[in-house]
Amino acid sequence: MSTISSDVLLSTEELRARLVAVGQERYHHKHPFHLLMHEGRLTRSQMQAWALNRYYYQSQIPVKDAIILSRSNDAVFRRSWRKRIVDHDGVDGQPGGIEKWLRLAEATGLTAARVLSTAEILPGVRYAVDAYLQLVGQRSPLEAVASSLTEMFSRDLISLRLDALRQHYPWLESGLAYFTARLTQAPEDAEFAFDWVASHAGTREDQELAIGALKDKCAILWAQLDALYYSYIEPGWPPPGAFRMETA
Amino acid sequence: MSTISSDVLLSTEELRARLVAVGQERYHHKHPFHLLMHEGRLTRSQMQAWALNRYYYQSQIPVKDAIILSRSNDAVFRRSWRKRIVDHDGVDGQPGGIEKWLRLAEATGLTAARVLSTAEILPGVRYAVDAYLQLVGQRSPLEAVASSLTEMFSRDLISLRLDALRQHYPWLESGLAYFTARLTQAPEDAEFAFDWVASHAGTREDQELAIGALKDKCAILWAQLDALYYSYIEPGWPPPGAFRMETA
Repeated sequence: MSTISSDVLLSTEELRARLVAVGQERYHHKHPFHLLMHEGRLTRSQMQAWALNRYYYQSQIPVKDAIILSRSNDAVFRRSWRKRIVDHDGVDGQPGGIEKWLRLAEATGLTAARVLSTAEILPGVRYAVDAYLQLVGQRSPLEAVASSLTEMFSRDLISLRLDALRQHYPWLESGLAYFTARLTQAPEDAEFAFDWVASHAGTREDQELAIGALKDKCAILWAQLDALYYSYIEPGWPPPGAFRMETA
Repeated sequence: MSTISSDVLLSTEELRARLVAVGQERYHHKHPFHLLMHEGRLTRSQMQAWALNRYYYQSQIPVKDAIILSRSNDAVFRRSWRKRIVDHDGVDGQPGGIEKWLRLAEATGLTAARVLSTAEILPGVRYAVDAYLQLVGQRSPLEAVASSLTEMFSRDLISLRLDALRQHYPWLESGLAYFTARLTQAPEDAEFAFDWVASHAGTREDQELAIGALKDKCAILWAQLDALYYSYIEPGWPPPGAFRMETA
């Protein structure tokens, strides 16, 4: 237990430590769906369900970042933040993150058209992703930026995942470009966002709001995997209308 | 398969039949969580989880109806629709639906303060309920009204549930006023909403939008029970920060 009174400003390193603690407790690297994936215990159909559903999250990332851009009157901030939109939407014929994710989905055996339609995604995944758009649009700009700080934790998860995917699901190899790109993009983005949050959270209350926004973002990622686990692993009951696994 | 061309207006009774078919396939009377509840197979802690989480849905119903009111310029419509807000918020010292739901939660052994805080509700439940507010605020008024048509199916479910609750969970008796009130309120509301949808859907496209809105509402109800099932029945993993059942 901290003995620091709750209205004392945290130092930058104390703030970082609080954010890291949120990730250790709540980031989706601990979710049972990911644990099974990394142990090689998911079937190709389960990997399809994951790729198809997670596509909806990927597709909304530039929308989320455009909302954040739209809330800033600082051209310096906007010039930095727009990198994220470029990374996801691509530039001059170079595929961005969304297109790379489609390659991953295709590597699982799905057609791009089926994924692009988003017709079969789980309602629970859709609601969680849409809640992310609500968060960045309706709460303070500080909280909107802070909600991106899950990127502080993503390099470690992606490093682990790349090894696990290559070992256990070698048929995915042609679809791994999304993750290799994120290995460098995510830490750059996280560093900028952390510095911005640290310098713009001028009171302890602001700092607590930023920490709360990161918790809420962790819950948004976690809920997507809950929906996948429930529908495609145990008990294995997707809701009416959602993607069904092929029976083996 | 229907041989009717897709641009021919459905008759009122054809429209009703299509809506009823949506309910038969997708309404949450078929959800495994409800099936277990009605068979008497839920523990008191599982019933607490249900009452605590479903409270968030109840609490947002008048907000949802106020959004619908706010989108109408027809005083006749608004006079009818406001009944729903009165029913849920109460009048002159008579408890409304929200307060009755709190009595139900208390009958499971929870304190009202714990329920009112909404601190422990499942993120998946919160996102689904918030998606309902988005639906009625952002889609057409016709779709907003049509999304309420799950009330066409609720009397049968509540009748069945009242019998099951009295038989299997007699300690809930003091909390059942919510359901007895809804036995008459829901059919009245459904009749008004159906007539309004039938008379305001002037094209087949409108009719299909109304049917789609009802499907989407069914998914919103279903997703709440998915989150409950996953967290409190099987495999039984609530996300970080959510309500935990007492260990027996």
